[in-house]
Amino acid sequence: MKLFAGLSAFPITPMTSAGEVIVPDLQGLIRRIEAGGADSIGLLGSTGTYMFLTREERRRAVGAAIATTTATPVIVSVGALRTDEAQAHARDAAEEGASGLLMAPVSYTPLSEEEVFQHFAAVASVTSLPICIYSNPRTTNFTFSPAFVGRLAAIPAVAAIKLPLPTGDIASDLGDYRRAAPGLSIGYSGDWGCKDALLAGADCWFSVVGGLFPERAAALTSAAMAKDRAEADAHNAAFEPLWELCRAIGSVRVMYAAANIIGLTQAQPPRPLLGLNPADRDTLAAILPV
Amino acid sequence: MKLFAGLSAFPITPMTSAGEVIVPDLQGLIRRIEAGGADSIGLLGSTGTYMFLTREERRRAVGAAIATTTATPVIVSVGALRTDEAQAHARDAAEEGASGLLMAPVSYTPLSEEEVFQHFAAVASVTSLPICIYSNPRTTNFTFSPAFVGRLAAIPAVAAIKLPLPTGDIASDLGDYRRAAPGLSIGYSGDWGCKDALLAGADCWFSVVGGLFPERAAALTSAAMAKDRAEADAHNAAFEPLWELCRAIGSVRVMYAAANIIGLTQAQPPRPLLGLNPADRDTLAAILPV
Repeated sequence: MKLFAGLSAFPITPMTSAGEVIVPDLQGLIRRIEAGGADSIGLLGSTGTYMFLTREERRRAVGAAIATTTATPVIVSVGALRTDEAQAHARDAAEEGASGLLMAPVSYTPLSEEEVFQHFAAVASVTSLPICIYSNPRTTNFTFSPAFVGRLAAIPAVAAIKLPLPTGDIASDLGDYRRAAPGLSIGYSGDWGCKDALLAGADCWFSVVGGLFPERAAALTSAAMAKDRAEADAHNAAFEPLWELCRAIGSVRVMYAAANIIGLTQAQPPRPLLGLNPADRDTLAAILPV
Repeated sequence: MKLFAGLSAFPITPMTSAGEVIVPDLQGLIRRIEAGGADSIGLLGSTGTYMFLTREERRRAVGAAIATTTATPVIVSVGALRTDEAQAHARDAAEEGASGLLMAPVSYTPLSEEEVFQHFAAVASVTSLPICIYSNPRTTNFTFSPAFVGRLAAIPAVAAIKLPLPTGDIASDLGDYRRAAPGLSIGYSGDWGCKDALLAGADCWFSVVGGLFPERAAALTSAAMAKDRAEADAHNAAFEPLWELCRAIGSVRVMYAAANIIGLTQAQPPRPLLGLNPADRDTLAAILPV
């Protein structure tokens, strides 16, 4: 199976209020994901609050996660505001044994296409790992057009793209990127639209709920990839109440609270992010798909 | 005169490609701003690429700038992704002798109002310096409504707000914030709209061109604050070709190239930001208001 394919599960990265990774809690999450049958682990993604961790702590998380897995490949997010920082994260991830990299064009000053291209080329130049482009316009203020993805795909290390859900039809969106970059694996994030993305032929579901509920997410993935629409719909419906809360107050906040309720960690999201208010927490406790 | 009033000039922060502040070049820019008659220096603003600098380098820039000024107050941006980091920057700035702080709700995961409120309250709790709210929706994905600014204004340290240019009428926008937060100094950034903001009664122009052309920017500010529309219009018109280029390719990139051309520094913007292409650089050289 290709690396950027099937269910890629994105755990939170439990940390202390001072930003130190709580290794035993992270390892518990990693074991749970592997036992649940995910095809890969998406470490330090947006749900894994990578931008709130120092280089040292990111590397510690990567090392701890890889030491815990037996067979599941670990994909590590290496996004950073500076190009040299992103290069350093890529080198660290490779040295710790990562199987692939995920990179968003994180920005403060919105970036031009040429800047994003040079940024990816610079990171590709320091690694032999395959890179997945991370398109996340909501946090990076950068939109990857199909034509620009086609240009990036000419960089040999660039192997995949993680797309956000389109506002329009997902089959048509997928077709646009397939035609522009036929060699890339194409996956989606935005959990509530990923069943339809997989049914439409997407390669990968980059999944937030997969980080906590890998078994159900893997079942949904298998059904959708086998084009078993009825089975996929049933799994999807079971997640819907959770996704409603994620859409309302943000997946990261909800996943932290869910992990707290299940008893996997007592870590809180890094400030300024806040945990759930009591009412939302009660709602969450009542709808957890466990 | 109030701290957050008149012309606040925002220089670039010259740094090496490794992110080390080039102190003599920064000091040259600071001397130029002070000689030009700015009312304050906005150090480490967006133009000063603060998010691309480590804590140590930010502190070094603050110390060097304050050691160079004789009377002009220095306002330091302390925005950071983590609340504890922003607090650390605030403490550093105070220890180095800053007169005030500017803070944007920098984010990766878009923040809620409650999260932004707690973030400002937490930074205010560790400083006795006045804080200016920095509203920059384009980079932070957070919009400060007048009602929310009214709520923030109840934090004693919160003394001012730096607003982006509105899409609609500036006098009406200013009126909305004045009514919501009558105790705050209110200023604008977006150089091309600031003459009108000052004519409409805004307290401060947070100025990018003021960081390189302080004399002309100060003349524009004085004319506009004295409601001398004809004089203000004349100064404004002289800047317009430069602003056209800023709107097209971004102020930070243009200010770096302008400083290079004038001979104030040979520093380049931090990667992934790129300098101007040769054609844009030629255009810039021909229109510099020197």
